[in-house]
Parts: sequence; C-alpha cells; structure tokens
Amino acid sequence: MSEQWWQQGCQALDRPARNTAEARQQQLTKPAGSLGQLEQLAIELAAMQGSQRPQVDRLWISIFAGDHGVVAEGVSAFPQAVTGQMLRNFVNGGAAISVLAKQLGATLEVIDLGTALLLEPLRGVRHLHLGEGTQNFVQGPAMTAAQLLQALAAGQASVQRACEAGSQLFIGGEMGIGNTTAATAMACLLLECPAQELVGPGTGLDSAGVAHKAKVIEAALALHRPAISDPIDILQRLGGFEIAALSGAYLACAQRGITALVDGFICSVAALMAVRLNPACRDWLLFAHSGAEPGHQRVLKALQAEPLLDLGLRLGEGSGAALAVPLLQLACSLHNDMATFAEAAVAERPL
Amino acid sequence: MSEQWWQQGCQALDRPARNTAEARQQQLTKPAGSLGQLEQLAIELAAMQGSQRPQVDRLWISIFAGDHGVVAEGVSAFPQAVTGQMLRNFVNGGAAISVLAKQLGATLEVIDLGTALLLEPLRGVRHLHLGEGTQNFVQGPAMTAAQLLQALAAGQASVQRACEAGSQLFIGGEMGIGNTTAATAMACLLLECPAQELVGPGTGLDSAGVAHKAKVIEAALALHRPAISDPIDILQRLGGFEIAALSGAYLACAQRGITALVDGFICSVAALMAVRLNPACRDWLLFAHSGAEPGHQRVLKALQAEPLLDLGLRLGEGSGAALAVPLLQLACSLHNDMATFAEAAVAERPL
Repeated sequence: MSEQWWQQGCQALDRPARNTAEARQQQLTKPAGSLGQLEQLAIELAAMQGSQRPQVDRLWISIFAGDHGVVAEGVSAFPQAVTGQMLRNFVNGGAAISVLAKQLGATLEVIDLGTALLLEPLRGVRHLHLGEGTQNFVQGPAMTAAQLLQALAAGQASVQRACEAGSQLFIGGEMGIGNTTAATAMACLLLECPAQELVGPGTGLDSAGVAHKAKVIEAALALHRPAISDPIDILQRLGGFEIAALSGAYLACAQRGITALVDGFICSVAALMAVRLNPACRDWLLFAHSGAEPGHQRVLKALQAEPLLDLGLRLGEGSGAALAVPLLQLACSLHNDMATFAEAAVAERPL
Repeated sequence: MSEQWWQQGCQALDRPARNTAEARQQQLTKPAGSLGQLEQLAIELAAMQGSQRPQVDRLWISIFAGDHGVVAEGVSAFPQAVTGQMLRNFVNGGAAISVLAKQLGATLEVIDLGTALLLEPLRGVRHLHLGEGTQNFVQGPAMTAAQLLQALAAGQASVQRACEAGSQLFIGGEMGIGNTTAATAMACLLLECPAQELVGPGTGLDSAGVAHKAKVIEAALALHRPAISDPIDILQRLGGFEIAALSGAYLACAQRGITALVDGFICSVAALMAVRLNPACRDWLLFAHSGAEPGHQRVLKALQAEPLLDLGLRLGEGSGAALAVPLLQLACSLHNDMATFAEAAVAERPL
C-alpha cells in the first residue's frame, strides 16, 4: 500500500510557547502545582495553540453514527432501530449531546455513516450511507477496503469543516448499537489481551449477556487474527464506520493542529488506533474521562492518558468530552488571568 | 450550655420532588444510569430545591480568611504575611478564586476574620477582626469561647446574605497560612486517628517539614484531648477562625435550605465538624473534589461523600468547588432539557 493520507506528518507542538506557559504557571499567585492537572492542561493547550494565552471558546462536536452487523449475535441490550431513532433525537435537540452542545455554545454536526434500517433524510444530518451498517464480523470482515477509506475520510472531512469554522477544540462522538462489541474486539488485538479482560455491559447487558458478548468477540478474534498484518486491518475487520471515522478525525486533528478532546471507551479505542497508525498524533489528544466500561481504563493506560473526569459515565455521543469542556476553559482562564506574585505583591518564596 | 443556634432544625429535603426526579431520569433518552454521578446529582438538587427543574445559576462564594498562632511552630512553607497579601489579591481579581468567580458570574465575598499582621482596610473585604489570628494551640486553646461564637456567626451571616441575594448555591472558601495544620489536628480527633496518618505537605512542605508538622500536631492533641467532651471543644481548641466560620456556614445552609458545595481538605474538615454538631446538615452538602492532601480522602469517607473531581488540587480558596460548578449546571440542563423516550419516539425497553 502506498502512503495514505493519515500516515503523513502531524503538526509539531510549539516548544517556546510551552516553555513560556510552564514558566508562567510558576509565577502565578498559588503554591506551585496546587492547581493539579489544570496546570499541565493549560501548558499543553498553550503548546498546541502556539499561544501564551490559550483559549477554548469555539467548540466543534461531530457525532458519527453507524450500525453493526455483529448485533445479529445478540450482543446489545437495545434494538438496532435505536441508532436511527437517536439520529433524529440528536438533530431535534433531545439527546444528551444536543443539550450539552447548546449549553456550551458548540457547533453540533451529525453524520450518518450507515444505519441498518433505512431512514428518511433527516434535516441537519449528513447521510453518507457507506452501507446498511457493517457486516457481522463473526462471519467475515466488518467492512470493505473502500468503506474503510470512506469512513476515515468522513472523519477527516469533519475536521476540515471544524478548522474552516475557526474551531479551537474538536470533539468526536459516536452512536451505534453494538459498538462496544466492535471497540472491545479491536482493543483485544491492539492491547493483545483476551476478551474476558476487556468486555463490559455496554448500554446495559446483564452478566450472562456480558459472558455471551465475550464469546462472540473471541470467535471473531480467532477468525481474523491470522489475517492481520497491520493495525489498519484491525479497523477494517473488526471496527465500525463510526469508529473508523473517529480515528480519521483524530489523525486529521493532529495534521491540522487542532486539539481533539477524546470521549469514552469507543472514542478512546479509535484514538488508540489513530496513534498506532501515526504515533505523532498522540500530541494532539486530550482525554476527557475514565468511563464505566471495564476496557476503558486499559486503553487509557496504553495511551498514557490522564483523563479529567471519572464520573461513571457510559453514554457516548461525545457527552463525557462535552462535560469536560468547562475544565479546559477554566484552566485557560486561570492561566491567562491570574496575577503573578510580582503583580500582586505576594511573597513568592517559601520560608 | 443551652441550645445553640446551630443545633436547631435543618430543612427537610423534598421527597416528592426527589421521587419525580428519579422517575424522570429513567425516562430520558439514554441507557439507565449512563450519566453516572450526574444523575444522582440532578436528583439531589431537585430534592433540595423542591423543584422538578433544578437550577444552579445564581452562585455565591464567601472566602473566609484568618491566621493561625501555630505557625510559630514552623509548620508552613509560606510566611504568615501571605494571608493578608492574598486578601488584597482576592479583591483585586488576581487570585484563582477571583478569576473563577468572574468566569462563573458568581458573587464573591471576602471576609477577614483576623490576620496576624494588621492590614489597612481593604475595599471589598469585610474586616471582622476577631483577633490577630488564633493563639498557638500547642500552648493552649486556639480561640476563646467568644471568638468561636463570633466565627460561627460570621459563617451564618454570609449564608444569610447569600439567601437574601437569591443564591442557589453556596461555596465557602478559606485562606490562612497554617490552616492545614489546624484542620489536620481537628480531623485527628474527629476521626480518632494519629497525625501520622493524616498529615500532608499543605502548600509545599518537604518530608522533613511534614514529619515536624505531625509532631507539632501530636503535641497539641496530647495537650487538649483530656479537656474535650464535645465536638465543639475540638473547634475551639484546635480550629481556626475561618474553619469555624465555614462550619457555621454549612450549618446555616442546611437550616435555610440552600445547597452548599464543599471545597477541599480544610472545608471538608469544617463540614465534618458541622455534621458532628448537627447531623441533619449532611443532606445539604455536596462535595466538589478529592484533593491532594492525604487526610482529605479519610474525611470524605467519614462523610460518605462522592466528590465530583479528582484533579490533584490543593489550593483552597474555594477553587475546587468553583471548578465543579459547571458539572452541577450541566447535570441540571441534562435533567431538565433532554427528551424522554416517549417524546423522542426512541425504543425504551431493552430487547
């Protein structure tokens, strides 16, 4: 395979801006380090934005939706029709992410990559229709090479629109009944660990359902493992349209130099995939929260992520990332607006 | 001692409002429980406000400052003059809490209960001057009975002003060089555990400094323990003006029926004291974060608190509580504005 777009270079962080921000944090009127993770957060944002006064005011949220053939194996607590029903709910303002986007003043874009049940065109939804969901990956690859490229490009295109709108933060969200199964299967191969260690209840399986889900995933791993020679094969064979779009989006964020705030388990698996495809993209990823799905912590650890929130969230839709946005904004305000010891005539030195 | 104001009844939570809110959370278009702690948070706010649509828009922050005689024992990394210097910084807008209050649109009130170094009157500061700081509690009680009553009443008066302004949330903050020593000493008696288990670096002691601080606290505990017959004795003998004011404020919040959002270690010790003085006040306390000071987690556990944030904060000033405010606001927005399954025509039942 010749070089693909996602293998091309990522933007470099601005080291002088980082150094200036680090020095400023030491001068602000507080004991050194007393703002904890928010200090590093402001420093990282300064390095990404190449600015002494980072800001996270213009927010972009893209929700990627797609269905999963593996739902035929009985791996989800909810019927597949919910994917389409939630697309309507997103644009009608009733979903969690719709409410959060409105409160935050964020642009919310909704992309339908392919639902199992055909939908009427929905006002406010971009219908790309890569297929009627993915194929059941217990029987074969989830998607074709062409579908994979389209899904990755869909994520890239969203980031392009975000950048053209002058956004300072990109949040990707996902919706797709069955997608914790796909994400868990991917994570098993990316982390080289058995399904039993990563599998969880998703939207609400009971323990028998979780055990069945683990068996379904193990069957899929046994089928596909011999054919995988590159991380991208994992995405094609076990991923989902929305997961591939998220990976594409994170890669594009790094190439364009816009901060991505990663949501929950599925987004984190997509981020891990992105980092395996192009390790330099890691610099542009912030992690919003540690979710309730058991595999999430393992994936975050592999990414050396320090998530901001740990509230037991397991909704998806980008909702956990949206909830973390005020922390980014307040970290910037503190960094930008606090007085220095010299400005405030406060004793700086410990005794 | 006859019944004191803080022993009088607290407001009851609104059980019908709680039940209605619980039922609504089950009907919103998300898997049950998928918003984690934010669901319970919205339910608790509904029960406190007696409202089906809780709101946390009008915010009140009172910062209580006072000095500590025990600083003479060399227990702080910063000179005592910083307490007064930071009072200036609060009203001049340069401190962390000043920046956060401005960003959140909160009313910020600053109360000087008594600094060791006399200050010129500061515009925007309420100077109560209970004394030139507390006495060194290694040698005797930190404050007199009269000072204790004045400090408790100062907290009560702040809550009265907050309520008169129509506030929906009360945040107390503290400033006082040496106050982790006082709070740790109090916590040792309230939790019946040795200083070694609770003591920490405060604003930045090294390990030798922490060990010395533990010895100072143990000496104070040995002096005062025989004289303590009631929790209020702990507050008078080992507390601080600002800590007593915070306890008074939390008690007054519960009596007036306004939600208090508790900040870090020192505020949590003040909250634990308030609960020991009048257990019913616990219903009105929310806990913002789990801070870096080692004793904080123990105090939170004793309070059965589930803090919202865990960012390694150790600044005080109410800053951790301020940082958690957007989570309360967004929890309310989600609760109030999301569509129900019926409204959105989304399949509610698992398969």
